[in-house]
Amino acid sequence: MSAHSTIASDDEILALQRLEATVARAFNDKDVDALMSVYARGKALFVYDVVGPPGVYLSWDAYREAFKHFFGCLSGQLRFSVSDLEIEVSGDVGYSRSLQHVSGVSAADGEPLHYTVRVTDVYRKINGTWLIVQEHVSLPIDRTTRSPMLHVSLPTNRSV
Amino acid sequence: MSAHSTIASDDEILALQRLEATVARAFNDKDVDALMSVYARGKALFVYDVVGPPGVYLSWDAYREAFKHFFGCLSGQLRFSVSDLEIEVSGDVGYSRSLQHVSGVSAADGEPLHYTVRVTDVYRKINGTWLIVQEHVSLPIDRTTRSPMLHVSLPTNRSV
Repeated sequence: MSAHSTIASDDEILALQRLEATVARAFNDKDVDALMSVYARGKALFVYDVVGPPGVYLSWDAYREAFKHFFGCLSGQLRFSVSDLEIEVSGDVGYSRSLQHVSGVSAADGEPLHYTVRVTDVYRKINGTWLIVQEHVSLPIDRTTRSPMLHVSLPTNRSV
Repeated sequence: MSAHSTIASDDEILALQRLEATVARAFNDKDVDALMSVYARGKALFVYDVVGPPGVYLSWDAYREAFKHFFGCLSGQLRFSVSDLEIEVSGDVGYSRSLQHVSGVSAADGEPLHYTVRVTDVYRKINGTWLIVQEHVSLPIDRTTRSPMLHVSLPTNRSV
């Protein structure tokens, strides 16, 4: 790879890191408009969400409604952070994987919520702006108990 | 987009459709070597798997072991099919989303297994060959029962 393309790619990765920082701020502020600013509009967005039904969103508008509902289900402060974020870029496509940690309190019953989701994002640079066009958010299922695993982490032994 | 780049892109999408057909054949044959031929080798592969622990694989070798174990857990024929496959390509990067339907019988207790997973794949063209470099496989969690939803489908109302 030439020095030029490495620098260009570094700039793009920086832009995508800023996008992910916007996501983190928006979650902590429960600001649905700031959050949705990073997603492709209309039917250019496709999402596999962590919960269902439906578990699939086919548009920006549907995902916005889901986030509005989610923020409304939490009372008071929401704490959100990202770890293990790895971003790759080639041309006008980028992709990432991360773990996203959410803590809050259910507005319905006052129960604490505390979990880590696995996230895959695909980004496209559209008219000079990077946007998420595809998102996949999930919890793994414990193969023994068949319940969602709420606190996944990356294996520390890098051989696995 | 020029006619030339459209044709090039069509060729690449065809190549990725063939890759996914290889995956389907390999599942139906429980052929772990054929299956693993479509994944990037060594640590170039990253996977969020449907079950855990660990729920994350950091290498080709770890994912191969997981598939070997999975195929060994099923007695007799495995039935596998893909639906709702959508592939996009730009340059040397591709990405897709699909639903993958699995039916089989547990070797341990003879119980039928029957479920649909959501899959996101990211492909890179490496030395002229497309390989999966990142895969995310999951079931959504039912927000009421907090159990995995085994039979997700795409909303039929395209407005959502």
